Amino acid sequence: MISASMKEMLKGSSVIRAMFEEGRRLNAIYGEENVFDFSLGNPSVPPPAEIEKVINEVLREESPTVLHGYMSNMGYESARSAIASALNNEFGENFTEAGIIMTVGAAGALNTVFKTILDPGDEVIVFAPFFTEYKNYVANYCGRIIISLPDPVTLAPDLKAFETLFTERTKAVIINSPNNPTGVIYDENTIKGICGILYAKQRQYGHEIYLVSDEPYRQLVYSDAKPPFLTKYYDNTFVAYSFSKTLSLPGERIGYLAVPGRMSGFEEIMGGLTVANRILGFVNAPSLFQKVVARCINMCCDISTYRRNRDVLYSELTRLGFECVKPEGAFYMYPKSPDADDARFCGTAKKYNILLVPGSAFGYGGHFRLAYCTSREKVEKSIAAFEKLAEDVFGRK
Amino acid sequence: MISASMKEMLKGSSVIRAMFEEGRRLNAIYGEENVFDFSLGNPSVPPPAEIEKVINEVLREESPTVLHGYMSNMGYESARSAIASALNNEFGENFTEAGIIMTVGAAGALNTVFKTILDPGDEVIVFAPFFTEYKNYVANYCGRIIISLPDPVTLAPDLKAFETLFTERTKAVIINSPNNPTGVIYDENTIKGICGILYAKQRQYGHEIYLVSDEPYRQLVYSDAKPPFLTKYYDNTFVAYSFSKTLSLPGERIGYLAVPGRMSGFEEIMGGLTVANRILGFVNAPSLFQKVVARCINMCCDISTYRRNRDVLYSELTRLGFECVKPEGAFYMYPKSPDADDARFCGTAKKYNILLVPGSAFGYGGHFRLAYCTSREKVEKSIAAFEKLAEDVFGRK
Repeated sequence: MISASMKEMLKGSSVIRAMFEEGRRLNAIYGEENVFDFSLGNPSVPPPAEIEKVINEVLREESPTVLHGYMSNMGYESARSAIASALNNEFGENFTEAGIIMTVGAAGALNTVFKTILDPGDEVIVFAPFFTEYKNYVANYCGRIIISLPDPVTLAPDLKAFETLFTERTKAVIINSPNNPTGVIYDENTIKGICGILYAKQRQYGHEIYLVSDEPYRQLVYSDAKPPFLTKYYDNTFVAYSFSKTLSLPGERIGYLAVPGRMSGFEEIMGGLTVANRILGFVNAPSLFQKVVARCINMCCDISTYRRNRDVLYSELTRLGFECVKPEGAFYMYPKSPDADDARFCGTAKKYNILLVPGSAFGYGGHFRLAYCTSREKVEKSIAAFEKLAEDVFGRK
Repeated sequence: MISASMKEMLKGSSVIRAMFEEGRRLNAIYGEENVFDFSLGNPSVPPPAEIEKVINEVLREESPTVLHGYMSNMGYESARSAIASALNNEFGENFTEAGIIMTVGAAGALNTVFKTILDPGDEVIVFAPFFTEYKNYVANYCGRIIISLPDPVTLAPDLKAFETLFTERTKAVIINSPNNPTGVIYDENTIKGICGILYAKQRQYGHEIYLVSDEPYRQLVYSDAKPPFLTKYYDNTFVAYSFSKTLSLPGERIGYLAVPGRMSGFEEIMGGLTVANRILGFVNAPSLFQKVVARCINMCCDISTYRRNRDVLYSELTRLGFECVKPEGAFYMYPKSPDADDARFCGTAKKYNILLVPGSAFGYGGHFRLAYCTSREKVEKSIAAFEKLAEDVFGRK
């Protein structure tokens, strides 16, 4: 009854679905407070207190017919201008409102980009480990994901491996830094290396190769590292941003696409993105929240909880014998699995009511992902469970 | 730079884009108050006054972390239960929350359905004239639109023509009643006829054929006609609903899909829809407005303006010599074009600052669409312009 591709998809998604069901089962038996669910990236920190005030302001100041009505499929000009200005101020860029499209989160932005640029059979290179959904977003438009394996020590891109993956069909490269699932930030040398290769490959193949920068974690940074802003290094860059994590509004589905005026074929690209945003069924980004985020662009939720969770978990897990690259941003860490079979290891963790995601789900196995966007209390209480888990797995190693 | 299919699409959408630009040009020259823009379906009636109160209630009562956070991709259980109950009360149905998915409007709902059920090359029958976007929504999943031409007098489906269009590849039939662009409501006999044919064709081909009911105008009815509720007539029906028109909230992108438990393969279908809603990039319907519409299900904006606009325009246009099926619902009418070339006629209308859409855009030419969801004053002021237009076109006939 359902389509062949959807049947295939349902089979694949059953691992995560099974874990979700397992979480509910464990909560029911042991009580939610005794289950350490590190499986999902749902922010635990509330939105900035100002958000509610701003929602009320917008409701008071705007005519409801206009506020909740249709606008251009690209979004309100006022919101797009505010975003262009904020990006220009922060990064010394030259965005104009004509290069900004308000989107249904970063997921909506990425689908809009791939609908616009991919012909069937086109290839999109991703750096593993990577957010699983990229595979689906590219497959939606009959594109193919090509996986670039990381440096096994730093989990950053391995440029030598990357360079060998290009073909005549390479249409785009996805970058997600700070990274889900590793928390790694790609440093400026890495970015310059990637962009140098991209410029060379564009010349070699004689057509555009786009950089697609997925940046929902841009402001979630816990070190002095500042993620390089990619349009400064490569003109043919799409910036896909979401307010989900910065403002703790993931349910509201609000984000944007930013396209530099220097992108080749800028006008045709913007026309394509606008039509794609419409015909995929988004039509436009939710209107009230377009106005809300336009007034909150420089706000950020309190990320001190995430920083503290990272510090506690990194020091405790390494103390217990886990090997892990110290995350600099986002709210994930990606330790090595002590068991070569990472799914089996996550099964073992479940015995101690710890829910983790096997690294094989992110295109680079032998690891597990831990999402620490949970409460401080939960993290502190989990340490005893991790101790038991460590005893179990390192004992039998 | 953009994909081949998107290039094709951009060419096609240039007619409507050109009209949009023309509207802006005319507004700039003559002033917005002297331009009679009947081209777009953007509601002019404000949302019910209670909406703002309910938004404030929800903001006050719910924890912001939960309210703006992720929930199941299907949407909040509370919203889905409220919708199931409301449908059951109104139509004597047996929906459960397991059969409701909150969506990014009806456009999101339709894309989610087609992603779930269409294999490349599958055919979807639509009754002309029809909302242009159906073609794009089906093409997104490499399906083919098959057009069923109407009875030329009533503009309702011609069942004899319809019956001849089925093939081995027919996967679905779209119904949109009250109809955009005609305002026609398909009566119970028509619905019974369509469903009888569907049951027979399912038996003949030995596989499911789905009815997809696009119902954004369900409550916008100006006569005693009540649009039959399709799940009562055919089990394999997807109901795609939007609050855009009923509550005048089109910019907020909030709607739902309702699937009867009797649909064959219900569980697999719901699994597929949930995954499709996620991977297309919607992820979930905007969260605040899920909670808002759940408390406003039985409200409706004041449709007396639309009714009055319909009455004035229908009586004036027929008085002036235009032939038109009297619309019973939605906020469109679809008179015959006095010029066989409907695009040329719309060009003539522009001379009098009247903006209309040629019928050829809706898969059944020789007509023009007039969207009367505008203000009463605008409609009244337009009559003098229509008089001049009538003089021009009927004079030279």
